[in-house]
Amino acid sequence: MLAGLPLPHSFDSRAGLALLRRAAPTDADALIALLADDPISAARGDVASEADRPAYAAALVEILSEPSNDLLVVELDDMVVGTLQLTSIPGMARRGSRRLLVEAVRVRSDLRSSGIGSAMMRWVTEAAAPALGSAMVQLTSDSARTDAHRFYERLGYTGSHVGFKYKV
Amino acid sequence: MLAGLPLPHSFDSRAGLALLRRAAPTDADALIALLADDPISAARGDVASEADRPAYAAALVEILSEPSNDLLVVELDDMVVGTLQLTSIPGMARRGSRRLLVEAVRVRSDLRSSGIGSAMMRWVTEAAAPALGSAMVQLTSDSARTDAHRFYERLGYTGSHVGFKYKV
Repeated sequence: MLAGLPLPHSFDSRAGLALLRRAAPTDADALIALLADDPISAARGDVASEADRPAYAAALVEILSEPSNDLLVVELDDMVVGTLQLTSIPGMARRGSRRLLVEAVRVRSDLRSSGIGSAMMRWVTEAAAPALGSAMVQLTSDSARTDAHRFYERLGYTGSHVGFKYKV
Repeated sequence: MLAGLPLPHSFDSRAGLALLRRAAPTDADALIALLADDPISAARGDVASEADRPAYAAALVEILSEPSNDLLVVELDDMVVGTLQLTSIPGMARRGSRRLLVEAVRVRSDLRSSGIGSAMMRWVTEAAAPALGSAMVQLTSDSARTDAHRFYERLGYTGSHVGFKYKV
């Protein structure tokens, strides 16, 4: 977990009052379901298979135990309906600035366009990044996710880079 | 620093025998010079100004002290001529895989096309990623760096994502 994050954070959405909080190991099943709810992730093998449960549960514990990582969830009506991961990274560039990497931004498919995703992401740039001393927030989004690209652009992100991946 | 990296690693290049090793705080000046040697970084304010030296030196110490980050340099004829940063990141996606983020890949401008960059990057995918249990290596490259994009594609990377940045 990242020390100093201003959590929990409650916010209004078109689906009701929501709560952004740190994930706990007991959120594993809800997080696995959110991953499988996304066709691009499902195509990569994240299909909520029972056989993969121990690997997901171990990864969740690992994320929460590392001091430069955190996994957050959005709760609505006592259900986990969104998530994102943060990684705080020191660096030499931009005069020794820290940057904040956002990964695994997900909102349950039936709740997209409810304002939950934009509230999460606004909290990242307006609250989390300043609290962590990050001069920049960055993320990559699959080229196929054109709706997501418009979403990030509306939030003030610039798609100035190409994201390269290499499967080991 | 990242525990378990197979370093130092020596390799042949068209400019001679080179050594990939972990950076030390005494490499700060050489690293600042490498940053300023790159027009895109220089345009972002990395111009090797004496006033910025303490911030760079502090960032270098921070990178080396964090257990999920490491900064490496390439030495040729006792001079630092290349660098890259590694960040090992746990995650839920792809059945709980770790990923390895590469940032700040730089080779001194007069030594580009000498095979130093490709040797560094091959070491990342062939040696570092397996040693750290990473299923994926990822990086972003400014859209203006078209030579770099061809370089990463030749090494087997896929430019499948858009990299978004937000200045805080």
